[in-house]
Amino acid sequence: MKLKAVLTQLAQAAKDASRTTAELPTSKKKNLLRDVAFRLKKSRRVLLRANELDLKAARHMRVPHAMMDRLMLNDERIAGMAKAVLDVARLADPVGRVLARWKRPNGLVISKVTVPLGVVLIIYESRPNVTSECASLCLASGNSVLLRGGREAFHSNRAIVEIYRRVLADYRVPQAAVSLVHRPERRGIDELVRMKNLITLAIPRGGERLMKRVERHARIPVVKHDKGICHVYVDRDADLKMALEIAFNAKCQRVGVCNAMETLLVHEAVAPKFLPILGERLAQAGCEMRGDERTRRYVKGIKKATDKDWDTEYLDRILSIRVVQSLNQAIAHIQKHGSAHTDSIVTRNRSAAEKFKAQVDSSSVMVNASTRFSDGNEYGFGAEIGISTDKIHARGPMGLEGLVSYKYIVEGSGQVRT
Amino acid sequence: MKLKAVLTQLAQAAKDASRTTAELPTSKKKNLLRDVAFRLKKSRRVLLRANELDLKAARHMRVPHAMMDRLMLNDERIAGMAKAVLDVARLADPVGRVLARWKRPNGLVISKVTVPLGVVLIIYESRPNVTSECASLCLASGNSVLLRGGREAFHSNRAIVEIYRRVLADYRVPQAAVSLVHRPERRGIDELVRMKNLITLAIPRGGERLMKRVERHARIPVVKHDKGICHVYVDRDADLKMALEIAFNAKCQRVGVCNAMETLLVHEAVAPKFLPILGERLAQAGCEMRGDERTRRYVKGIKKATDKDWDTEYLDRILSIRVVQSLNQAIAHIQKHGSAHTDSIVTRNRSAAEKFKAQVDSSSVMVNASTRFSDGNEYGFGAEIGISTDKIHARGPMGLEGLVSYKYIVEGSGQVRT
Repeated sequence: MKLKAVLTQLAQAAKDASRTTAELPTSKKKNLLRDVAFRLKKSRRVLLRANELDLKAARHMRVPHAMMDRLMLNDERIAGMAKAVLDVARLADPVGRVLARWKRPNGLVISKVTVPLGVVLIIYESRPNVTSECASLCLASGNSVLLRGGREAFHSNRAIVEIYRRVLADYRVPQAAVSLVHRPERRGIDELVRMKNLITLAIPRGGERLMKRVERHARIPVVKHDKGICHVYVDRDADLKMALEIAFNAKCQRVGVCNAMETLLVHEAVAPKFLPILGERLAQAGCEMRGDERTRRYVKGIKKATDKDWDTEYLDRILSIRVVQSLNQAIAHIQKHGSAHTDSIVTRNRSAAEKFKAQVDSSSVMVNASTRFSDGNEYGFGAEIGISTDKIHARGPMGLEGLVSYKYIVEGSGQVRT
Repeated sequence: MKLKAVLTQLAQAAKDASRTTAELPTSKKKNLLRDVAFRLKKSRRVLLRANELDLKAARHMRVPHAMMDRLMLNDERIAGMAKAVLDVARLADPVGRVLARWKRPNGLVISKVTVPLGVVLIIYESRPNVTSECASLCLASGNSVLLRGGREAFHSNRAIVEIYRRVLADYRVPQAAVSLVHRPERRGIDELVRMKNLITLAIPRGGERLMKRVERHARIPVVKHDKGICHVYVDRDADLKMALEIAFNAKCQRVGVCNAMETLLVHEAVAPKFLPILGERLAQAGCEMRGDERTRRYVKGIKKATDKDWDTEYLDRILSIRVVQSLNQAIAHIQKHGSAHTDSIVTRNRSAAEKFKAQVDSSSVMVNASTRFSDGNEYGFGAEIGISTDKIHARGPMGLEGLVSYKYIVEGSGQVRT
């Protein structure tokens, strides 16, 4: 069968299933998710075996270290995946919430009530736990989900989706409510994002090429989860010990993720003291540094940062560093080179913090904290569907609230408009 | 200068202006809007003169009655326009609102704070008061606005925008914060909706052709304000006197608007009694009726409705009527032919109303009220930017809340992620 026909059938089945998921009672959704969590843990071996197939292929293709890290499952990550599903099951049902209710002078009573979106399409890569996070959040919000994971994680994703579908069958919910897009053709993405009567929202998570591809072909609404070029700015009034910990954590705690720091900005007043110590620590951790001219005075032997570096999301053990003359210059750098994802200032100066918070228009703006906290779980949303870099519908870490819409219910007693 | 260059310059100026509008204090925005309202009323003659130029051209081109009605300004409509601006000035500032604030176990304090979108592009037709409604709402929400009105209302729109710009100058806000797109080329729309680094959101209001055009070319987020194929369903348990008033009002109170009824569904149990009376009243009001076979038994001499009628937004004194066998058939008809805009049931039966409310997934679902109430002003939002037929970002009557986004502000004391 032709690609378009296969995908249309898949999307139509997801839409049909969404009528059932939309009307699932809260308790049934919660029980279903708890069963999924239980089965994920119980299926440890199946998952690791599937993952090993993906890892083997990746090793064969010599994919970069950061991608291998994203792809890998282990006991800890499977346990984390199951826990994330339990966390979602514990959250309040986002469907059927009365957001507001008011009475108009003419007696009409208006209620604004949340409803599921319908069918959500997620396009993503590498990390298999994303598959489970997205499936659990979509089910919890009464949606069907089409999961278009990367080819490199195919076996892992299929094993995870199979667990969801077995539980769906147990609960007599159509299995098409959670579907993996099996066809690996890139062109499939173009077809899917055109299905405007079937898919309500597309969420592409990934790099620039994917975003451009989706932008070019989309006829349906899109909330982009684009790259994170995140900054930490070490102010002249920073607690340098705190700055050291935050900068090190933001870069090194996990490198293959969008909320890791890619560029460090350091005020010139503290650079001579701060940079040599940080440089040593990063070098010990095997992190490559690329600095502007002044940085290279304080951290010997590192590469020169080129213009391209300021606009690059490394997703790897690489950091670009620039010494700035002022808070204003730091903000201007972020406005010019940042991706409006997550940016952090380290300072003890209250007015510097206020200025940074007001003028940096990123989805998360932090004061004295690591950029790595920009995450649905860390914000207390349970798992996250991703981190939106758009300003429309949902911005920043996107949990259940981003997966519902609403309708107005207007109740009258015969009112007509005059 | 070439079209693209002209429009890019316009959008860039709007973006630059949005830095100022984003930081306007609440009181300044309110004063500015009050001055606009005052000037609109004071400029009655200027506005009517400009409108007369548009009307003359429209008469010359023999545009349909419904469009003439949409285009026309008169004293009452100008007063209404000014009042709508005052209503907006009275609303709470949607910017800088703390939507939520919470503390995490690790001590991080997270605040979700509203921010303006940036630059909003509105594409619309005919009604000049839309120009003022959109400009006032965008300013009140700290945005710049690009107004791409229809060619047929050009003089009226220009006169209205000039009033806004004069007041902006008084307040030392860049005039580019409210800009009319002067170039009438259709192709200009294609260029504008591609400007992804300049324009944050496009809001097309209009018919299918415009929606398709925008869908095809858009590289920026879009919230569509598509057509309204609105239904009134007269249930077997309806109060027929109430049903008569609601049906007549939904169709005839104003015909050239998206929340007017286009199709009436009548339960077969009440059709023999209800339809002859309604038919007479509609005929007296000069409303053409097109019915299915059974309708034509009760309303003599009317045209037969074709399949196309059920999918048509007339925006005129025309109504299609169908007799249905059950509530289920009415809901199925709405699901198949409706545009998920506004649909109303007239019934005294509580469980019928509940079913209708749950299963009709339209932006506004009404019980015993005219569809004409689906409107930002009628809902108490002040003016409206339009009525979204999308489920993403904003749905239904879209007021100030639809014109802001938010950011997360995370305040710590040196937290790093483990």
